[in-house]
Amino acid sequence: MGKQAIGVVGLAVMGRNLALNIESRGHAVSVYNRSRTKTDELIAEYPDKKLVPAFTLEEFVESLEKPRRILLMVKAGEPTDATIASLKPLLDKGDILIDGGNTHFTDTIRRNQELAKAGLHFIGTGVSGGEEGALKGPSIMPGGQRDAYDLVAPILTEIAAKAPDGEPCVAYMGPDGAGHFVKMVHNGIEYGDMQLIAESYAVLKQVVGLSNEELGKVYTEWNQGELDSYLIEITSKIFSKKDEETGKDLVDVILDRAAQKGTGKWTSQNALDLGAPLPLITEAVFARVLSSLKDQRVAASKVLEGPQARPLGVERAAFIEAVRRALYFSKVISYAQGFAQLRAASEEYKWDLDYGTIAKIFRAGCIIRARFLQKITDAYTKDKAIANLLLDPYFRDIAKNYQSALREVVVAAINAGVPVPAFASAVAYFDAYRSERLPANLVQAQRDFFGAHTFERTDKPGSFHANWS
Amino acid sequence: MGKQAIGVVGLAVMGRNLALNIESRGHAVSVYNRSRTKTDELIAEYPDKKLVPAFTLEEFVESLEKPRRILLMVKAGEPTDATIASLKPLLDKGDILIDGGNTHFTDTIRRNQELAKAGLHFIGTGVSGGEEGALKGPSIMPGGQRDAYDLVAPILTEIAAKAPDGEPCVAYMGPDGAGHFVKMVHNGIEYGDMQLIAESYAVLKQVVGLSNEELGKVYTEWNQGELDSYLIEITSKIFSKKDEETGKDLVDVILDRAAQKGTGKWTSQNALDLGAPLPLITEAVFARVLSSLKDQRVAASKVLEGPQARPLGVERAAFIEAVRRALYFSKVISYAQGFAQLRAASEEYKWDLDYGTIAKIFRAGCIIRARFLQKITDAYTKDKAIANLLLDPYFRDIAKNYQSALREVVVAAINAGVPVPAFASAVAYFDAYRSERLPANLVQAQRDFFGAHTFERTDKPGSFHANWS
Repeated sequence: MGKQAIGVVGLAVMGRNLALNIESRGHAVSVYNRSRTKTDELIAEYPDKKLVPAFTLEEFVESLEKPRRILLMVKAGEPTDATIASLKPLLDKGDILIDGGNTHFTDTIRRNQELAKAGLHFIGTGVSGGEEGALKGPSIMPGGQRDAYDLVAPILTEIAAKAPDGEPCVAYMGPDGAGHFVKMVHNGIEYGDMQLIAESYAVLKQVVGLSNEELGKVYTEWNQGELDSYLIEITSKIFSKKDEETGKDLVDVILDRAAQKGTGKWTSQNALDLGAPLPLITEAVFARVLSSLKDQRVAASKVLEGPQARPLGVERAAFIEAVRRALYFSKVISYAQGFAQLRAASEEYKWDLDYGTIAKIFRAGCIIRARFLQKITDAYTKDKAIANLLLDPYFRDIAKNYQSALREVVVAAINAGVPVPAFASAVAYFDAYRSERLPANLVQAQRDFFGAHTFERTDKPGSFHANWS
Repeated sequence: MGKQAIGVVGLAVMGRNLALNIESRGHAVSVYNRSRTKTDELIAEYPDKKLVPAFTLEEFVESLEKPRRILLMVKAGEPTDATIASLKPLLDKGDILIDGGNTHFTDTIRRNQELAKAGLHFIGTGVSGGEEGALKGPSIMPGGQRDAYDLVAPILTEIAAKAPDGEPCVAYMGPDGAGHFVKMVHNGIEYGDMQLIAESYAVLKQVVGLSNEELGKVYTEWNQGELDSYLIEITSKIFSKKDEETGKDLVDVILDRAAQKGTGKWTSQNALDLGAPLPLITEAVFARVLSSLKDQRVAASKVLEGPQARPLGVERAAFIEAVRRALYFSKVISYAQGFAQLRAASEEYKWDLDYGTIAKIFRAGCIIRARFLQKITDAYTKDKAIANLLLDPYFRDIAKNYQSALREVVVAAINAGVPVPAFASAVAYFDAYRSERLPANLVQAQRDFFGAHTFERTDKPGSFHANWS
């Protein structure tokens, strides 16, 4: 009996769907799960597919061609370490472990280094697209040894999503934790996108007074233009969905308490470590947290009054267009922050990330897929060393032409008492980033005053301390 | 020869000044430093003081009364671990180590537990007030074993700052890492305070057009009222300080690149871990980071245009008063977030923190000392279980009466292109916190749409999934 070119460990929904995806490209796939029930179920459900079950790790490892390619789809953290520890003694030099789980990149760096000592290759790869993406074609972000990547690249390329121009959404990201890092920032950007859309919804509903039906139409229309993206598309569909039980619009039946799985938090925490300003995504993370404090909010709403509602006093269609522009420009600012974080990480961890390629592989398969990502690729193609996307001519034009709309929408929201933390943070970032002079001189004066922390001068280099008292 | 009641290890400026502070209250103090030069210098500088030098750790430990009280003032991190490891074999059960360094609270939890196994007590204590505070009276935030605290409380009480009503600014915070945690949040709050003041400065300078002399007068006046605090006081003085070299106002000579030592970052990262919304302080941390990107900002300022400057169109004195109100209300919001983080930490780490007492010991000695802290103590005295300070009647009134000023100032800044990330974040937090309904229902709908993450319903408990396609 022949051996398989690849095997999958962990047959929860993501592992199972990736195995089926690989199989659908003509490969026989070894499959293993710690409890055999999942393996039996999978084989029973697809008796005709080239899925080769193994019920011990020994059997599983034996069933693979060398160098072995093993895709780990187990729970991140301790379970992944335990699986690696069980596999390690069964493997031979040159074998390749691929962690496709939702792993923190620092764990991937550690595992890559530990396994390298035993002559084993370790690829940490981001996989985005959820269950459906895993089955039909996800966006794939692998990092690890370059030569090991080359050995798995053909299969990853086959199973990856294809961008509108036919290019597969997979590329080598860089050494050790680079792949999981890029996936983490992808998720942070996703938090930002979702919060910005939520704020546009709040403004359109509470300031303009649009109905759900009108909201559905607005987002459908927006999806035809610059904002064309998966998240805008599903948003437009959400507003027409009825609750089967009550017949009401489902969006109104859903509780306003947003959950999270932690990757947005990781992105913000890492940005703080790197010293890369990521205020918009961080506001989005905190907005989810605040939404989860539903009981406190309900209590507070009864005692903390807001402004008197005032009529908007602007033309409705024009204001809706302003919201569209505010959303697009804020999105640009959010990506500028996220890609600046990638740059800071690339320098800190010595990854030599290719930002244009990263934007390219986001174009299909993943949650943040969007037409405008091409503009990011274009910007880096023109100038690989650009410090911030806002400096690129296309995005500079967006800034020039859309900033008054963003200001108008934030001002209207603030005057109406509608919270827009991410929109407001976008304006503040934009104005700070383009400020030759910020009031940080006062902060440095204070620090030197109370703690003798010294300051720099505008007229010459060096560090100085004043005798303040 | 008699033995000393306390000894200090580490004679850099903070350790040296704390030793002198203790000595000034009538205690002989054993002093030790790893390199003997610092010890020799200290003794040479103060030959008449009751400072008892030791040049080996054995000698130092021998010189102390039992149970020994040893104040560690060494660099946080690895040097602290190394010092503890050297001391440990020399100590007896019941001896007390007190870490007064700038230690991350998780290290303190770890050390407290490790030393407890050897029968040693470990107190991690925040010390705020800088060099001068250490010498004359800092605010002290000790955490660790309660009975060990009782044995060092008399000395700590003597050396602590005294509040205006005479109360010493020291109190037992709670077990293991509680003291260093409170100090960390103190520092985060300090970042918020400083950024808010910097934004008020930017608005007064760039929107109103005040000169440095006028700014000095404004802050001097503000320091007479609700804003009465150490940071406003030094701000008022900063504007009248001349550069000795050029004769210019020093504040204009200082480079607008704010540095940091990491405790603000820790506070934000912990808030993200706890799920405690801390957007304002986090914006303040990112504002420092952004200020440090001076070269990028200078380049960006040449290509990214802002709005046309428009005349303010309001009465100047009235607008200055609006800025004062915006600053005070934003400060209230910042402390509401910081104290909510303390509450979340107290629950998570089982510390039973006493929030009213914490505000009390901030009233003197430390950088954020301010008249308004009494209002926080009052709020918790009235209702220890209050979920958020904004719900207290005093702060509710501030919210009611000052929110229109805050909105006015943020709107004016946004229209003028002056970045006010912390002010804007304050408005967004206030409006979100008092929102019975946030647009997070849309976020949950999206998450269920693309990832089957389920949602809750408004009409009944449970978790639900819709068939979206």
